[in-house]
Amino acid sequence: MVEMARLDIVQGDFWPCLERRLAWEGVADETVVATVREILKAIRCRGDEALLEYTQRFDGLEIARAPELEIPISRLQAALVGISREQREALQVAAERITAYHRHQKQESWSYTEPDGTLLGQQVRPLDRVGLYVPGGKAAYPSSVLMNALPAKVAGVSELIMVVPTPKGEMNDLVLGAAAIAGVDRVFTVGGAQAVAALAFGTESVPRVDKIVGPGNMYVATAKSMVFGQVGIDMIAGPSEILVLCDGRTEPEWIAMDLFSQAEHDETAQAILLSPDGAFLDEVTEAIARLLPTLERHEVIANSLRSRGILIKVEDLDQALEVINFIAPEHLELSVEDPQALASRVRHAGAIFMGRYTAEAIGDYCAGPNHVLPTSRTARFSSPLGVYDFQKRSSLIQCSPQGSQTLGRVASVLARGEGLTAHARSAEYRLKG
Amino acid sequence: MVEMARLDIVQGDFWPCLERRLAWEGVADETVVATVREILKAIRCRGDEALLEYTQRFDGLEIARAPELEIPISRLQAALVGISREQREALQVAAERITAYHRHQKQESWSYTEPDGTLLGQQVRPLDRVGLYVPGGKAAYPSSVLMNALPAKVAGVSELIMVVPTPKGEMNDLVLGAAAIAGVDRVFTVGGAQAVAALAFGTESVPRVDKIVGPGNMYVATAKSMVFGQVGIDMIAGPSEILVLCDGRTEPEWIAMDLFSQAEHDETAQAILLSPDGAFLDEVTEAIARLLPTLERHEVIANSLRSRGILIKVEDLDQALEVINFIAPEHLELSVEDPQALASRVRHAGAIFMGRYTAEAIGDYCAGPNHVLPTSRTARFSSPLGVYDFQKRSSLIQCSPQGSQTLGRVASVLARGEGLTAHARSAEYRLKG
Repeated sequence: MVEMARLDIVQGDFWPCLERRLAWEGVADETVVATVREILKAIRCRGDEALLEYTQRFDGLEIARAPELEIPISRLQAALVGISREQREALQVAAERITAYHRHQKQESWSYTEPDGTLLGQQVRPLDRVGLYVPGGKAAYPSSVLMNALPAKVAGVSELIMVVPTPKGEMNDLVLGAAAIAGVDRVFTVGGAQAVAALAFGTESVPRVDKIVGPGNMYVATAKSMVFGQVGIDMIAGPSEILVLCDGRTEPEWIAMDLFSQAEHDETAQAILLSPDGAFLDEVTEAIARLLPTLERHEVIANSLRSRGILIKVEDLDQALEVINFIAPEHLELSVEDPQALASRVRHAGAIFMGRYTAEAIGDYCAGPNHVLPTSRTARFSSPLGVYDFQKRSSLIQCSPQGSQTLGRVASVLARGEGLTAHARSAEYRLKG
Repeated sequence: MVEMARLDIVQGDFWPCLERRLAWEGVADETVVATVREILKAIRCRGDEALLEYTQRFDGLEIARAPELEIPISRLQAALVGISREQREALQVAAERITAYHRHQKQESWSYTEPDGTLLGQQVRPLDRVGLYVPGGKAAYPSSVLMNALPAKVAGVSELIMVVPTPKGEMNDLVLGAAAIAGVDRVFTVGGAQAVAALAFGTESVPRVDKIVGPGNMYVATAKSMVFGQVGIDMIAGPSEILVLCDGRTEPEWIAMDLFSQAEHDETAQAILLSPDGAFLDEVTEAIARLLPTLERHEVIANSLRSRGILIKVEDLDQALEVINFIAPEHLELSVEDPQALASRVRHAGAIFMGRYTAEAIGDYCAGPNHVLPTSRTARFSSPLGVYDFQKRSSLIQCSPQGSQTLGRVASVLARGEGLTAHARSAEYRLKG
């Protein structure tokens, strides 16, 4: 039996209790910070030499020369042929759907011309080169390769460099096959902070990139936050979360399994069920008890539900919305009768799964939207990974001779008001008599 | 006479020389980090009490009760009435133009329905509440209030909270007037790391926000980077830069003044002139020598040009483009005959000022585009501040019963490939027969 925390919105201390239960601070300890700082410095100063040393030390990879760290594209193609036909086709369907969806996100340049001939706009361009970090070992997820690589490809990024550690030389053919499908341009068998450093600074073998995306452990996350500024990075992800809102009319076992599907990620993952129907919360609790022993990852799930899971009783759907917008969940499942009406009132969520048939897992793999989503309540201010993360904009301004007269006068007044007289005079030079 | 570094692309060591001259690392020293960490902790634990203490200590503001830290909106309106008519009108013209331009950036929600009834899309929403940091004292810039506040307003942010230190009670009416025009909702007279902390964590008086934008000193920048994750932040800006490309046929004095207009910001600002015409580089050098003594901020300018300025001789416009894309300048001025043709080949720049009549200063104040731009070569991967920084997206997924059959099978195969069987089973539950 798993004891999950249960809250009722009518309790006087509901909101502080909820906030405490949500709290998460992923702080890297000082030892990690110091280690990563040393690794970054070594790669920056000694390039490939240091990269080889660390890869030997941490991954037990006996490679004599840095160029051997690169996996040829032919090896990716071989991996794709080597996996089962069912898996290959599933990866291909997923890739096609992810690509189709992300095409809708592509931003185009725009401009307009004012009556006096002044042109204003924004020019949108893809990033030149992007680095994609892929974890090795147990948490080697081909879906993560597709989700990170394809938006970059849709954006038009010209070169996509993947790094993936291969401890003791062990490669994951699903991951390599996914890289082949996604059109990754080059792959290096390096990982950890040293791989992040190689991408950020470049080495003799690994080209320097403009942005690094993809999940990783504490060392990878710390390295990414330290090279930020030198290169762009994606969000540093916290534990995965799901919030299911159910009106009590979906199969309790379906809902239990949806909660499990987040909880099985790791023990810090958070699964929350919200319902106006107290009896339904009991039914799901029973379904959890019944189903849990049948799951491969039941220990992880039990620990996650025990330490971070929550069952919340609300009075009605309006209150449910209030709780949802407070939590700003990464994954929100609206297992209710009219999910679209409710979704339009959701202000903060990474992804919204609407209706009884939309298992969150479908979004993780193949519906089309990205599975890299804002966690730990950051959906209040951030968005799913998308094509827009691999494009950037340059403002365009061309003053006509006439426009420079009117605008120049305004700029001159404001610049002098700020005491910036060179600004004022550079505008005044363009004024005619 | 100002000795500016001069490089020629034909030199063998041109690229490394250029890279060294561009290098900039804004590292906060350990003392700053420790001080800021202490301030954040104090505000988080003791709220208003600590905020009052710091404001008294750092700004010499004798205020007994925290509510007195708020400036009433009527005071902003009074400031607007109090400034000169010319200034008020200039601020209003600027605000109208900035608003009109930024409306083009507003993103709308979108969705599409597949043949089997599955709906996919993205819901776009504004942030709830945004904090705007405005520096006090010397660098009090009303233009900065407009540039940071108006995109948030266009995005539909419901509450905009401004903080501005008022050392010894001194207020800047241009700044307050700009806040009135921009429609800032509340203003607090606090600054430094304590203001950032108050916005990030909330105190009894200052409401907690979802994102903090706006420039500030080293303490402010350090505090922003430390609260990132808790709230969103904008880019941490480095020194301002301009790169002017001139074909040699613009008035040398105009170009000299354009270089000054960046150099006058501070001694770390960087002004670069690129030309295929060596004689023109000499003419601008002479114009610099001639004009410099006539400028109020000539000492700052001289120091900036001496320590960071560069004159670069290229062979032709193709080489110029190569240099531009390498530098990825914050401000790029194309003072050439056909600037649009050239601009379309620029891959990396914060803002592109096209033609001989487009002084960069016009973009700083009133052309319409934002003056908050990526510095220190980060235009390789980031964009001007815009409406998109105050909106965020939620993915939308609604599987039809039929869609959940096809997608559920694909998800199941991929989830099992990753060893995530709860994921697989939650999709399989929705399969019929």
